[in-house]
Amino acid sequence: MTDPKESALRVRPGRAATEPPQELLARVAKRRRSLSHQQYVDGILKGQRTILAQAITLIESSRAADRELAERILEDCLPHSGNSIRVGITGVPGAGKSSLIEVLGTSLIRDHGQKVAVLAIDPSSQLSGGSILGDKTRMKSLATSDLAFVRPSPSRGSLGGVAQHTREAMLLCEAAGYQNIIVETVGVGQSETAVYDMVDFFLLIMLTGAGDELQGMKRGVMELAEVVVINKADGANRAAAERARIEAQTALHYFPVSLSGWTPRALTCSAQTGMGISELWNCVLEHTVVTKANGWFGQARRNQTRKWMHEIIQQGLMQQFESHPAIRKRLEAIEQDVLEGRTTSFRAARTLLDIYAGSKH
Amino acid sequence: MTDPKESALRVRPGRAATEPPQELLARVAKRRRSLSHQQYVDGILKGQRTILAQAITLIESSRAADRELAERILEDCLPHSGNSIRVGITGVPGAGKSSLIEVLGTSLIRDHGQKVAVLAIDPSSQLSGGSILGDKTRMKSLATSDLAFVRPSPSRGSLGGVAQHTREAMLLCEAAGYQNIIVETVGVGQSETAVYDMVDFFLLIMLTGAGDELQGMKRGVMELAEVVVINKADGANRAAAERARIEAQTALHYFPVSLSGWTPRALTCSAQTGMGISELWNCVLEHTVVTKANGWFGQARRNQTRKWMHEIIQQGLMQQFESHPAIRKRLEAIEQDVLEGRTTSFRAARTLLDIYAGSKH
Repeated sequence: MTDPKESALRVRPGRAATEPPQELLARVAKRRRSLSHQQYVDGILKGQRTILAQAITLIESSRAADRELAERILEDCLPHSGNSIRVGITGVPGAGKSSLIEVLGTSLIRDHGQKVAVLAIDPSSQLSGGSILGDKTRMKSLATSDLAFVRPSPSRGSLGGVAQHTREAMLLCEAAGYQNIIVETVGVGQSETAVYDMVDFFLLIMLTGAGDELQGMKRGVMELAEVVVINKADGANRAAAERARIEAQTALHYFPVSLSGWTPRALTCSAQTGMGISELWNCVLEHTVVTKANGWFGQARRNQTRKWMHEIIQQGLMQQFESHPAIRKRLEAIEQDVLEGRTTSFRAARTLLDIYAGSKH
Repeated sequence: MTDPKESALRVRPGRAATEPPQELLARVAKRRRSLSHQQYVDGILKGQRTILAQAITLIESSRAADRELAERILEDCLPHSGNSIRVGITGVPGAGKSSLIEVLGTSLIRDHGQKVAVLAIDPSSQLSGGSILGDKTRMKSLATSDLAFVRPSPSRGSLGGVAQHTREAMLLCEAAGYQNIIVETVGVGQSETAVYDMVDFFLLIMLTGAGDELQGMKRGVMELAEVVVINKADGANRAAAERARIEAQTALHYFPVSLSGWTPRALTCSAQTGMGISELWNCVLEHTVVTKANGWFGQARRNQTRKWMHEIIQQGLMQQFESHPAIRKRLEAIEQDVLEGRTTSFRAARTLLDIYAGSKH
């Protein structure tokens, strides 16, 4: 039997010789992606990582045909999604996010026989053009495991677009049987909030010394955390980490009680020695038990799903607005008028809305 | 000389007799508002409170003609606005916001000879139909002062609309010479964030006992505060208030450093004895000095202004979308499909956006 995928991958030698390698590779990549809708869905449901990865590439594509196919795949995978624990992890660069994920993920695979997917949202990769998060080379032992799937952050698109692609990728990973989804982010822009809005459990990684290390962290993030973990609590740093933990615990205690019924905790851990890692995961499990029992778990997910829909609509409307020729021509000048006090923001907004409405009727 | 405003207010006796009192009142109210654009602007710039109040009523009106007039007034007042300190005050019901504002405002008027405007954003008044915040009867001595202007929260409209009206009212108050604008809110919905986004200084009022009293307070609010003040630090409560202050100070210390160059502080005060009130205001003044010196003050205001414009555009686009017949017909059913897992939020959003785009071309 001839596998249609196999034959699609075969490159006609006559043409290859006349093509530069770059274009050849692009053609191969393109053909590799031209699986049928059903092949994608079957592959994902069977947990085939290559097909899962290709489907996520499809999700991230800006081509209309790819988008259409991606949405059909997503829709068919949807009934098989949702059966995971979704954990968001944030912390300033250098806090040790990837080492912690590596140790945590490896433990879940080795000690619990579970599958782990690691996704990333990194708005800074849009500037550099490459992704610094979720990089496979940084999570060596995890990336080589058959039960792990590590995917870097999409390096193109607005935060809204990247967040949407990550949510979609999350659903596909769940359909592929990953019981644990870890979404990693740095504290840039609104990325922590974006991650918070797509996970069940939000983990903030910090270091000792609440002063300087926090400079880069935005206000409000700590209050989102289900658990604050002081990392690198090893060697000479252990006592300082314990002091930082107590301080963090005091701060957390002072926050308003969460509606989830969960009281945020502060822990210490060391990705290097493994200390505290299983306690950390026990927290995640305990949180799941508590919030499933009181109904918060499902309710929060439903609220997130509704919010995703409204966010995409809002983004879509704003995109249509901003890309409209009549608006593009005027937006910058009107915004300048507002900033220099020549008109109010209210009037400027209405003027632009009127131009937009007028240009479509 | 006949004042045109006076004559506009005169009611013809012959007609009044045949009209029911309700309609008569409406007619009087309508005439009272029918000042010319220039009369409004002159009255506001002269600091005439009645005209300022009428102009704010105009701002809150949903009639298109009123809106047009309001925007022209705002535009002419804009060059005279901005010369104030804008202070936002939030705290759970019972924290003593209005007593504190009363004491603070009275002190600014009596000891510093300054003018004080108190505005309010109270999303809960949209449910009750009446405003519980900024109620004049709650701020008796302040409301009777010639140098004070107290305005309750608009009781109609979405939070976005109410916030916009409050921003506009703020500009008019500034044009009317109020050097201090206090915007009060309760911790409902997103109202604290809305207030935070329109002020220079954000004050959180709390009580002793960080546990139960905080139940109603949303996560993230404390981290927005420039100052946390523990109110009712009097009598037997004084020692507990001091302990709460130290706890709050520890929590604040643990937060990321603000980009404004200001280190948030925790204070105690008593609206009853007046203890701590002048220290509180000194904090506000110090914050202004620090942030004006490092440029944050002006930069933050410019960012706010830009944000207001984008928010209004976004609200306008969303409103047009949601009120479109084709969308109204489908939105609820599609949202239900999403919530019950029959379709993804991504596809649902795109379907709705496509319906919307298709119905206009």
